[in-house]
Amino acid sequence: MTPTVRIDLARLDANIAAQPGRLRPHVKTHKILEIARRQLAAGAHGLTVATVGEAEVFAEVCDDIFIAYPVWADKRLRDLAGRVRLSVGCDSLAAAERLVGVGAAVLIELDSGHHRSGVPVGELESLATGILDLGLDLRGAFTFPGHSYAPGGQEAAARDEDRALSAAGQILRALGVTDPVLSGGSTPSARYSQVATERRPGVYVFNDAQQLELGTCDWAGIALTVLATVVSRREDLHQIILDAGSKILGSDRPAWASGFGRVKGVPDARITALSEHHGTVAWPAGKSLPQVGEHVAVVPNHVCLVLNLVDEVEVVESGRVTQRWRVAARGRN
Amino acid sequence: MTPTVRIDLARLDANIAAQPGRLRPHVKTHKILEIARRQLAAGAHGLTVATVGEAEVFAEVCDDIFIAYPVWADKRLRDLAGRVRLSVGCDSLAAAERLVGVGAAVLIELDSGHHRSGVPVGELESLATGILDLGLDLRGAFTFPGHSYAPGGQEAAARDEDRALSAAGQILRALGVTDPVLSGGSTPSARYSQVATERRPGVYVFNDAQQLELGTCDWAGIALTVLATVVSRREDLHQIILDAGSKILGSDRPAWASGFGRVKGVPDARITALSEHHGTVAWPAGKSLPQVGEHVAVVPNHVCLVLNLVDEVEVVESGRVTQRWRVAARGRN
Repeated sequence: MTPTVRIDLARLDANIAAQPGRLRPHVKTHKILEIARRQLAAGAHGLTVATVGEAEVFAEVCDDIFIAYPVWADKRLRDLAGRVRLSVGCDSLAAAERLVGVGAAVLIELDSGHHRSGVPVGELESLATGILDLGLDLRGAFTFPGHSYAPGGQEAAARDEDRALSAAGQILRALGVTDPVLSGGSTPSARYSQVATERRPGVYVFNDAQQLELGTCDWAGIALTVLATVVSRREDLHQIILDAGSKILGSDRPAWASGFGRVKGVPDARITALSEHHGTVAWPAGKSLPQVGEHVAVVPNHVCLVLNLVDEVEVVESGRVTQRWRVAARGRN
Repeated sequence: MTPTVRIDLARLDANIAAQPGRLRPHVKTHKILEIARRQLAAGAHGLTVATVGEAEVFAEVCDDIFIAYPVWADKRLRDLAGRVRLSVGCDSLAAAERLVGVGAAVLIELDSGHHRSGVPVGELESLATGILDLGLDLRGAFTFPGHSYAPGGQEAAARDEDRALSAAGQILRALGVTDPVLSGGSTPSARYSQVATERRPGVYVFNDAQQLELGTCDWAGIALTVLATVVSRREDLHQIILDAGSKILGSDRPAWASGFGRVKGVPDARITALSEHHGTVAWPAGKSLPQVGEHVAVVPNHVCLVLNLVDEVEVVESGRVTQRWRVAARGRN
C-alpha cells in the first residue's frame, strides 16, 4: 500500500556520522526512538525537543533533554523535571516566574535575526538579571537562525548567530554564569557556525527537498522518501497525479522552492500542486509519462512534517524493507 | 494544555442541519465517527471518503460508502467491498481492469476545470464503454470543482460542474446506464450547484478561514478553533507568538488568503508565519498586545488538515468542555 514513508538506513547512519560539532540534535524532525539512540551512540551529548510531550517520549532513551521553546510551565513540566536533567527555553519574565520550583535549568532564547520567539540581544541582560533574581538555574542562551532558510542566506545567518551568541556569552559571564551554554544551529547554517558551544540541527539525519535546493545536501544525501503510486495521468497536460498529497508530504512551500517536493531520479519534474491526497506532477517535456500503477519516490519539502503524519516508517537496507519503526512522538504537540 | 482542537457542538449541529441538497458528505474533513453519525441522522444517504483506510474506519457507522478517488485496487479494497455497499472512483482503463472481481460499483471521475484527476468530458464515452465492456457495475460520474477555491470563483466553478455532469448524464444514459449518479459539490460551490444528483461537501460541518475569506460562511459559522497560548511577545514588532504552528494548524496558504489562519474575535490580526510549533501573529496597530500566558482561539485556514494532526478533540457545549471525541480515521492515508 502507498503512500508510505521509507528510510534508507545506510544513508541515515552516514548522515548522523557526518554532522560536525558538539551536538544536541533536534529530534522533532524524526520523533523516532531508534534514531535518537543512533544519534546518542554517535556522540550526541543530549537531545533537543520542541514540546513537553516530545520530552516525555524521549526521556525513555536520554536523561539530558532541552526543550528549545519558550515553555509556559505546568504540572507536566514539573513531573518531567523529576525524571530527567531538563533545561527549557525562556524569553520573558512572566514565563520565568512560572518556572520557579519546577527544577529545570533555563536557557534564554535570543532573536538572532529570524524574528520569531526570543529577545533581542539588547534585552538579554535585563531578562537574565530577572531570572537570576528569581533564583533559577540560568545556564546559558540559545538561538535558532531560521533565516538560514533562504537561498544564499546560510553563511549570513550563521554570522548573525555568532554575533548574538558572542554577545550573550559576555553578558552572562559578567553576571556570574560560569561557562554558559551557547546553543545554536540549524541544518543549513551548521557548517558556518563558529561560536556555538553546542548545535541543535534536526533535518540533517534525512535531508529533504528544501536542503537540496538550498545546497545543504546533494541527491545522494537524501535518506527519506515517500513512496507513491501514479493514480491518474493526463497526456494533454503532460502531468501525473500521485497518491501522496499534503496529508503525508505536508504543504510547506517557501516562495523560493521549485514546488512542493522533488521526484527522486527525475530532477526536472515539478510538484506543482498538492491536495490532501493528490500530488500533481508536471513531468519533464520530452520524457514519457509513467503509467497508472507505477511507483514514484518523492522527496518532501520539509521532512519534519512528514514524520508527524504517519504512525510508522519502513526501513530499507540494500533495497529491501527489513524493519518498521514506530514514530513514537507523532502528534506530541 | 494547549494547543488543542475545540468543536462547538451547537454550531456543528447547526452547520450539519443547514447544508442544502441530497448529501453524501465527505468525512475526510472530520474523520470522527460521532460526526458521521450526526450527518447520517440529519439525512445523508451515504458517506464519501478519500482512501481505503478511511472507508475501513467509517464502515463501522455506514454501509454505503463512496471512495471519491481513482483507487488502484488491492486485496484490502476487495475485503472492504465484502463488508459494505462500496463505490469507487476511476479515471483510467488500467485502474478499471484492476477493479474486475472486486465487487465495487464504479463512478468515472470527470475533470470539470480543476485539472487534477479525472478525464475531460470528451474522453468519458470511450472510458465508460471500456468499463462496461469489462463487466463492471458503472453507476455514474463524479467531479470535484476544486477551482471554486478562488475569490469570486464559486459560481463559475458550479456552472463548470453543471456542464460536465449534464454532458455525463446524457452520455451515460445513451450507453444504457439507468438514472446515473451525478455527484458533485465542494463546500464553496455547493449553493450554486444545480445538476448534481448528490453532493459531497466536507468542510461545511466546521468551516474555516478559507471559507470565511471566500464568503462561504461568516464568523458565527465557525465550529472549530485551535486554542493556543501566547508564549512570546514583542512590543517592538507588535507581534505575538502562539504555541500553535503547522503541526496543528497545517500550512496550507493559498495566494489569496490573508495569512495562515485567523484569530477569533480579532479580525484585523494576521498570522504572518508558521513554524512547526510557532504561529507568528501581527497584532492590529493600536490594539494592545496580549500577555504571555493568555489564550487565543485560532481559526485554521484548512480544517481538514487539522483533524489529521490530532488524536482527539474537545467538544464544547455552553462554553464548557463536555466530552472528547477520538479522531478515528486520523492518518488513514
